[in-house]
Amino acid sequence: MEFFETVEKRRSIRRFTEEVIPESVIEKALEAAVLAPNSSNTQTWDFYWVRTPDKKKKIAEYCFNQSAARTASELIVVVANPKKWKRSNQRLINFVKEVKAPKQVVMYYEKLIPFTYSWGPLQIFVPFKWIMTFVIGLFRPITRRPNSKRDIQEVAIKSAALAAENFVLAMTAQGYSTCMMEGHDEWRIGCLLKLPCHARVVMVIGMGKEAERGTWGPRYRIPTSEVVHKI
Amino acid sequence: MEFFETVEKRRSIRRFTEEVIPESVIEKALEAAVLAPNSSNTQTWDFYWVRTPDKKKKIAEYCFNQSAARTASELIVVVANPKKWKRSNQRLINFVKEVKAPKQVVMYYEKLIPFTYSWGPLQIFVPFKWIMTFVIGLFRPITRRPNSKRDIQEVAIKSAALAAENFVLAMTAQGYSTCMMEGHDEWRIGCLLKLPCHARVVMVIGMGKEAERGTWGPRYRIPTSEVVHKI
Repeated sequence: MEFFETVEKRRSIRRFTEEVIPESVIEKALEAAVLAPNSSNTQTWDFYWVRTPDKKKKIAEYCFNQSAARTASELIVVVANPKKWKRSNQRLINFVKEVKAPKQVVMYYEKLIPFTYSWGPLQIFVPFKWIMTFVIGLFRPITRRPNSKRDIQEVAIKSAALAAENFVLAMTAQGYSTCMMEGHDEWRIGCLLKLPCHARVVMVIGMGKEAERGTWGPRYRIPTSEVVHKI
Repeated sequence: MEFFETVEKRRSIRRFTEEVIPESVIEKALEAAVLAPNSSNTQTWDFYWVRTPDKKKKIAEYCFNQSAARTASELIVVVANPKKWKRSNQRLINFVKEVKAPKQVVMYYEKLIPFTYSWGPLQIFVPFKWIMTFVIGLFRPITRRPNSKRDIQEVAIKSAALAAENFVLAMTAQGYSTCMMEGHDEWRIGCLLKLPCHARVVMVIGMGKEAERGTWGPRYRIPTSEVVHKI
């Protein structure tokens, strides 16, 4: 499907038919998801594809059995895990060395990423990072964040959202509908997925073929001129 | 351009030529951006399109004059402003009434959104919200967040990221390249744009026609099988 047609067509659909989605469709959408840009290419995202019927029922319950979860053919939980920079770091170092990236890039992955993505036991690094940033920032522009665990979670959530957008568009391009749900019980889902406490549930995505009354009506957006400011 | 081709083609490009981007290209990409799904359709995003040469120079400086900012034909600052739910709320109430959405939906916009998106002076509502959520959550699934200002910022940042992804894909589909930059001085940019202190700079997007050495090499992703977990 053409790109702008895909964007135009994507709506949050709240009711799905019982039609089964071929696995290959979801796999293709997941491949598109991970091509999203992300913070320093650390790829701190995880996608839990809920296949077991009883787990699917549980996740729907943790989304308050809203129709977009209850009637969904498939559910995927998008997770941001800020400690997963460790999963990609050594491979990124090898990669940037292999492609002969500038020395600063290699240094960036070897030194700066481990420093930036660490908060230390009981977040002991955070006040030091904050003071350092503040003092240097008096004299010249500096990246103000991330310092705290929350800051690093925020960065990971942002990257995971970019991937999730690719995912829902990729499902639309293949003729299926989706609904991103922020209305869920993050704590209960975390327990079910056995997530570590620093990981964050970004959203649950329900998907399937649109059923009747999938939306309440046409799309509503405030005029673009109100959100775009030429300065 | 076809959707999957667009996703495949999009890379973070760090060096642009001097070619001018027609305004209509950026306008079209902004129209695609605001079609992104977002939290309760509150549309708490803003796009600052930096047109004045001296402001553009300043923003590039606040992105540490990295080549993706310094050589960019155009720069857009993506902002998440959690208080902007007020901008759309009354219109959303009118809209859901007009399309005869279920009563709960009207109630949701009339009562729940103002409650959810408020943190009160000195965040005085936050402990009450937190305790209420915690107690109810002992007995049944409940949305754990947002409670604090930071939580609500996080929700707004997530929505703005979804729009930003649409934007960069829309630029790619029209033959232009982009680079999302999280490396920037959020405080200095906030001062320049006169942002209120609760607003957050989500990213700066540099764009233009790709110049030579726009990337360090091919794209690198860890295998999708490591980030997708079938449960």
